[in-house]
Amino acid sequence: MFSINENYLKLNESYLFSTIESKVNGFTRNHPQADIIRLGIGDVTLPLPPSVIAALHKAVDEMADKSTFHGYGPEQGYAFLRETIAKNDFIDRGLDIAADEIFISDGAKSDTGNIGDILGDANVIGITDPVYPVYLDTNIMRILQSSITSSKILFLTCSEENKFLPELPPKRVDVIYLCYPNNPSGTVMTRAQLKKWVDYALENESLILFDAAYEAYITEDDIPHSIFEIEGAKSCAIEFRSFSKNAGFTGLRCSYTVVPKALKTVTSTKKEVSLNALWRRRQSTKFNGTAYIIQRAAEAVYSPEGRKEVRSMVDYYMQNAAIIREGLAEKGWTVFGGVNAPYIWLKCPDTTDSWAFFDRLLQECHIVGTPGVGFGLKGEGYFRLTAFNSHEKTLEAVQRIKNWKQ
Amino acid sequence: MFSINENYLKLNESYLFSTIESKVNGFTRNHPQADIIRLGIGDVTLPLPPSVIAALHKAVDEMADKSTFHGYGPEQGYAFLRETIAKNDFIDRGLDIAADEIFISDGAKSDTGNIGDILGDANVIGITDPVYPVYLDTNIMRILQSSITSSKILFLTCSEENKFLPELPPKRVDVIYLCYPNNPSGTVMTRAQLKKWVDYALENESLILFDAAYEAYITEDDIPHSIFEIEGAKSCAIEFRSFSKNAGFTGLRCSYTVVPKALKTVTSTKKEVSLNALWRRRQSTKFNGTAYIIQRAAEAVYSPEGRKEVRSMVDYYMQNAAIIREGLAEKGWTVFGGVNAPYIWLKCPDTTDSWAFFDRLLQECHIVGTPGVGFGLKGEGYFRLTAFNSHEKTLEAVQRIKNWKQ
Repeated sequence: MFSINENYLKLNESYLFSTIESKVNGFTRNHPQADIIRLGIGDVTLPLPPSVIAALHKAVDEMADKSTFHGYGPEQGYAFLRETIAKNDFIDRGLDIAADEIFISDGAKSDTGNIGDILGDANVIGITDPVYPVYLDTNIMRILQSSITSSKILFLTCSEENKFLPELPPKRVDVIYLCYPNNPSGTVMTRAQLKKWVDYALENESLILFDAAYEAYITEDDIPHSIFEIEGAKSCAIEFRSFSKNAGFTGLRCSYTVVPKALKTVTSTKKEVSLNALWRRRQSTKFNGTAYIIQRAAEAVYSPEGRKEVRSMVDYYMQNAAIIREGLAEKGWTVFGGVNAPYIWLKCPDTTDSWAFFDRLLQECHIVGTPGVGFGLKGEGYFRLTAFNSHEKTLEAVQRIKNWKQ
Repeated sequence: MFSINENYLKLNESYLFSTIESKVNGFTRNHPQADIIRLGIGDVTLPLPPSVIAALHKAVDEMADKSTFHGYGPEQGYAFLRETIAKNDFIDRGLDIAADEIFISDGAKSDTGNIGDILGDANVIGITDPVYPVYLDTNIMRILQSSITSSKILFLTCSEENKFLPELPPKRVDVIYLCYPNNPSGTVMTRAQLKKWVDYALENESLILFDAAYEAYITEDDIPHSIFEIEGAKSCAIEFRSFSKNAGFTGLRCSYTVVPKALKTVTSTKKEVSLNALWRRRQSTKFNGTAYIIQRAAEAVYSPEGRKEVRSMVDYYMQNAAIIREGLAEKGWTVFGGVNAPYIWLKCPDTTDSWAFFDRLLQECHIVGTPGVGFGLKGEGYFRLTAFNSHEKTLEAVQRIKNWKQ
């Protein structure tokens, strides 16, 4: 009988947000009148900005005409978008990243999930706890099969004691996932703090997988928007960026990944290998590029109008973050994040069972959040709220929580 | 030092079509005046049909308004599209496939490439030779690492002797890739021929991965459009379908994969596992759904107008196929395919070196095709031409070949 990848049986039966969706659907079936406010999944709610809509319509019209139709594009993404990104997100900020170090894809979830394809099974993987579940789940899917123990994953605790910033690993790790601004805790690393990790990686010849999907939410000066602001990072890091949370592309699907040409390792036979070449090979074999019309939409994000529109969307959400953070603090709850990130991470009041808190908040306040334990064992006792709903709904949610007699 | 997946070093340095692209670019740099006719990569050239364009514009407008904006969609695809597919492609044709057995994605290349994620390392894989390179390359990437030999891949020869239809394997295989109508040879299997494979899979408890990306090109009656037309296939097969070649979505990116709920296997501890559940877990963890606007575009393919438009595009390409097939036969070349598929597979005249033939055809006729050896060792000596260019260019290409003094 053919066999399956049995690592899958070591996973929770469903992905965290699918579980939440089922619970919410169950509740609304029994309470069809309930006015549910969703502060759970990190999905945006504002429509796409006008310059993106205009770019989409224009590109759709191109697809209707034989002389401007676009079929298969380059798997790595069109040069017009990669060059625009290189200039705006890197070169103009003094960072030396070239267009051929940028790979356009359909989402940071795909790329952070698929990056393991090019890595060896023997790597010890450092993952923060709590963490965005995709990093952990995709490693469970990939590497446990060929090892007896789970010692290949080292959890780096993030807790109130260390302000949700992990300490350097007590033993060597080969690959480290870092996400800053952080999902779920909303915390950030300063340049000095991130430099410690880059230095660690350089010293230990480790690889940092840096998820910067939330960089647009940074409001404070000393917080790096890209790991490549740190000297030496081009030799030890891959960075994931997304148009989902800044420009509202969660339903449009576009992101990019930076794999510097300076990033190299050696094989078991001491042959030097470029990760840029490996990722290019992976993408050209297992991916056929992001839709042309969507790459044109992403390009529009960098137009003068597009920038203004995106700025105003981010500001809107960050006002929500302030409403939640301040409202809950006024109620006396302990809150983190929400200053440089669209996530508020709170200590569950009166319980350490974050699913119980989820259920009560849903049933008694009709508010959906995300239980901290869904992000890892060390997330137990905490809870994530997101700033992506409307002002009105966010104010209403905070008011409900303030009036709530737990 | 962190390690990489060293299977990648066993691959050709670049994906077949990337290599061809480089060769063509090199030629055009030196011959900027040459009027190159591309009959190489299987990319469409007609613009998107009007009903698809209208659906795209309408969906883009929805994304511009807060009340109709769509953020994250279901990872498996929207129900409106899955239900439309289930009804039109299966139920209306007497096949019992339900919407929850259908998974929408961004391309059959992604899905045929990623399907290995849910399969075990121990499977012996049957792959035809010649073959669409993605099946082979993705298996090299995935399974060789944990085995010393390459005995896990069994090549099933397709040659003139067997009319490019493989014999049943001489020894048991666990997983079999079949693509009919076939890329690259343009051949098809009748119901009786495909039934032999389904019976083999049922008897040997093997899994068939059936790529039906070209089903819209079938013109003859006794050729199955779906493997699920064969009794028992729901217990042993996964089917891949695409909107690329029928509706011209190569630049829009949409496909679907059918994983029947009846498809099960057992683990090493004899636990029964549903592949539908595994693939759902894979997709919800490593993929975030196809863009809403593109799923609306795919839905429009099934509207009465959309169907007519798609039919007329397919007919257009099939007229090209006839032009090539008949023109080359008139020249006295040996040709296969082109009746139920947009591919013509020809025996290289006067040489068994298909790259040499590629170079001569490019240099002397300014025509780009695909060397058979790019699809496998048994493809050596053959050459693939595609029907996706315009009538005018196709006629011109055939005329150039007819005038060619090799």
